[in-house]
Amino acid sequence: MSSSSSSAAASGSQKKHKVAIVGSGNWGSAIARIAGQNTQRHSDIFEHEVQMYVFEEDYKGKPLSQVINETHENPKYLPGCQLPDNVVANPSPVDAVKDATMLVFVLPHQFIRSVCKQLKGKVDPNAHAISMIKGVEVKDGKISIFADVIQEALGISCSALSGANIANEVAQDKFSETTIGHRADAKGRENAELFFKLFDTPTFKVGIIEDVAGVSLCGALKNVVAIAAGFTDGLGWGDNAKAAVMRIGLMEMKRFSEEFFDGVKPETFTETSAGVADLITTCLGGRNRKCAEAFVKTGKPFDQLEKELLNGQKLQGTETAREVHELLAARGKVDDYPLFKAVYSIAYEGIDAHDLTSRL
Amino acid sequence: MSSSSSSAAASGSQKKHKVAIVGSGNWGSAIARIAGQNTQRHSDIFEHEVQMYVFEEDYKGKPLSQVINETHENPKYLPGCQLPDNVVANPSPVDAVKDATMLVFVLPHQFIRSVCKQLKGKVDPNAHAISMIKGVEVKDGKISIFADVIQEALGISCSALSGANIANEVAQDKFSETTIGHRADAKGRENAELFFKLFDTPTFKVGIIEDVAGVSLCGALKNVVAIAAGFTDGLGWGDNAKAAVMRIGLMEMKRFSEEFFDGVKPETFTETSAGVADLITTCLGGRNRKCAEAFVKTGKPFDQLEKELLNGQKLQGTETAREVHELLAARGKVDDYPLFKAVYSIAYEGIDAHDLTSRL
Repeated sequence: MSSSSSSAAASGSQKKHKVAIVGSGNWGSAIARIAGQNTQRHSDIFEHEVQMYVFEEDYKGKPLSQVINETHENPKYLPGCQLPDNVVANPSPVDAVKDATMLVFVLPHQFIRSVCKQLKGKVDPNAHAISMIKGVEVKDGKISIFADVIQEALGISCSALSGANIANEVAQDKFSETTIGHRADAKGRENAELFFKLFDTPTFKVGIIEDVAGVSLCGALKNVVAIAAGFTDGLGWGDNAKAAVMRIGLMEMKRFSEEFFDGVKPETFTETSAGVADLITTCLGGRNRKCAEAFVKTGKPFDQLEKELLNGQKLQGTETAREVHELLAARGKVDDYPLFKAVYSIAYEGIDAHDLTSRL
Repeated sequence: MSSSSSSAAASGSQKKHKVAIVGSGNWGSAIARIAGQNTQRHSDIFEHEVQMYVFEEDYKGKPLSQVINETHENPKYLPGCQLPDNVVANPSPVDAVKDATMLVFVLPHQFIRSVCKQLKGKVDPNAHAISMIKGVEVKDGKISIFADVIQEALGISCSALSGANIANEVAQDKFSETTIGHRADAKGRENAELFFKLFDTPTFKVGIIEDVAGVSLCGALKNVVAIAAGFTDGLGWGDNAKAAVMRIGLMEMKRFSEEFFDGVKPETFTETSAGVADLITTCLGGRNRKCAEAFVKTGKPFDQLEKELLNGQKLQGTETAREVHELLAARGKVDDYPLFKAVYSIAYEGIDAHDLTSRL
C-alpha cells in the first residue's frame, strides 16, 4: 500500500521492495497468493500491493484480468482459490513491472523471450528476478536455462525456484517444500534471502542452495524421467522397476547437468526439494507420467494423447527428451545417457517400450 | 553337483563355492530362485546345489520342506513361483550350511541370534556371509546392524544386501536393482564380487558400494519414513507433502547413520537402490505405509491394525521407530531428528497426525 511505503520513505528507512508476478497460470496464481500473503506479513520489507501480469483473454465474455480483480480469484487457471486483495491483475507486462524491485517469472517458456523483449529497458536495473520456468532452451547445439536467458535479456540478477510443488496443493496450503537456487555472488545471496521472505510460510517451506543451474535443470529434466516412470506404469512392471528407473533417471539428470553446466552441486539433485522430492511428486502423479502410461497402454502417439488428455497442451517431458537428445546427438554423447536415450527412442523412434531397461 | 565339484577338485582348479540360503520366507524364496539359476549359469564358480534352510512347519498335513522338495515351490510364502530343481530345502540349519562357503542370511531378525548360536563352530571359517535382514538391534543404548551381529557371532566376513526389492516382483523377473554394501578390507571386496556373481541377472541388477552399515541402515530406517508417508496418505495431504516427508526422512536416515556408525557414505542413501530407490518403493506400496494410512483413517491402534491387516505380524516401521527413539532418548538427541520424533509421538504417544510436519 502506497501509504506505508511513503511513510517508510518519509522516515528515511530503507525503501521497501515492490513485487511483480510475471505470469498468472495455475502455478503463477498459486505463487501470487503466497506472495500477496507474505508482503502483508512482512510489511516492513515489502510494499503492500503485488502486481500480477495476466495474459489477457476472454473469460465468459469479460477480460480475465477484470474478472480476477473483481472476484479475487483466477477462475480459469486456479478456480476455487481466493487470492488476497492486494494481488492486482494487470494485462500489460510493462505496466505490471513498473517500479518493481522483485520480479517473479512464471510463464510458459515459449513466451519468455518475447515478454523479456517488451520489458527490456523498463525494469529497475537493481531489481531481483526469479525464474519458476520448468524447461530448457536448446539452440544450435547449446543448452540454456531460463534464469540465464532472463538475466542476460534484462541485465538483472536472476535466481531459480523449483520444488515438489503441485500448484493446486500449494494453493490449498497443504504442506510442501521448495528450493531457491541462486548465483554465487553477493547480489545472488541477497536475491535468495529476499525471495525466501516473499515465499516461505509454515506450510510452504523454502530451502536455499547456491546453484541456479542445478535447480533449473531439475525442473526440466525430471519430466523426462517421469515419461520413463509412466512407461513402467503402462507396462505394469511394478514398484521395483519404477523406483529403479527413477533412481537411474536422477543419476542421469545429475551427470548431464554436471557435464554441461559449471558450478552444479550434486546435492541439488539428491537432497533438495527441487531434486529428489520433485522427481518423486512428478513420477507419482503428473501429466507426463499419465500420458506415458497411456502411450504404452493404448499405442496412440503422444500428439494424439496430448489432444485427448491435455486439451492439446504440449507435454514438457517428451519435448525436453527431444531437446536433450538433440544436444547429446550434436556432442556425440547419446549413449552416455541410456535412460534418456531409451525415452527418446520409445517416444520418437517407434522402439518397443519393453526395451526401456534393456540397456540400463 | 558333487560330480562337477570333485572333477574340479581332481583337476586341481580352485574349489567351487557352495551356497546356503539361511531362511525361506517370501524374500528368502525369491532370492533362492535367483541363486539357484545363477549357480547353474556360473557353474565354473559355484557348486550346482543350493541348500535352503526351511523353518519346519506343517503345510496341509505335510512338512513344508518336503513340500518344497517335491513341488519345487514354496506354496506358503511364495506361491506360484517355480524354484530351480537345484534348490534343496533342508529343515536343519546346521545341515544346510555344512561345507557352505557362501551363506545368505534372510531370516526375520528375531531369529538371527538363535540361529547363529546353532551355527557357531559349524561354519567354514573362510566362508562369506551376506545379510538381507531389514532391521537393527538396539540394546542398552547401543545400536547394531545384523551384518555385524552375524560377523561377530560366526567369525566370518558379512556384507549386507538391500534394495528396492518387493519379493513377488523379483520372483516374476520384473526389472529391479539392488545394492551390496561390503567391508573395506580385501576379504570384503572378494565377498561382494562373489555375491554379485550369485545374484546379478539382466532383470535383477546388483550395485556394489563399500558401506555395509549404510546399506543395512537404509533397509531398517526407510520403514520409519514409510510410516510418515502413510500418515500423509491417511491425512489426504497430497503428493507434495508426501514427497517432502520422504525427502526429509531420507536426510534424517543419512544423518542418523553418519552420527552413530563409522564409514557410512552419504551416497549410499542418496544414490543407490538400497537408499533412495528402496525408500520410494516402500513409500509407494508396502505394509508400513498401508497400516499408517489406516491408522490415521480409522483411529485404530497399530497393534489392532497388525491383527486386522497383517495377520498379527509385527510392523517393522513402528518397531524401528521405537528402537530409534529409545536410542536417541538415551543420547539426549530426540529433537535432532524431528521427523523420527513425530512418527514416534504419533504412533506411541497419542499426538495428532496433523502435527506431523509442524516441527519440520
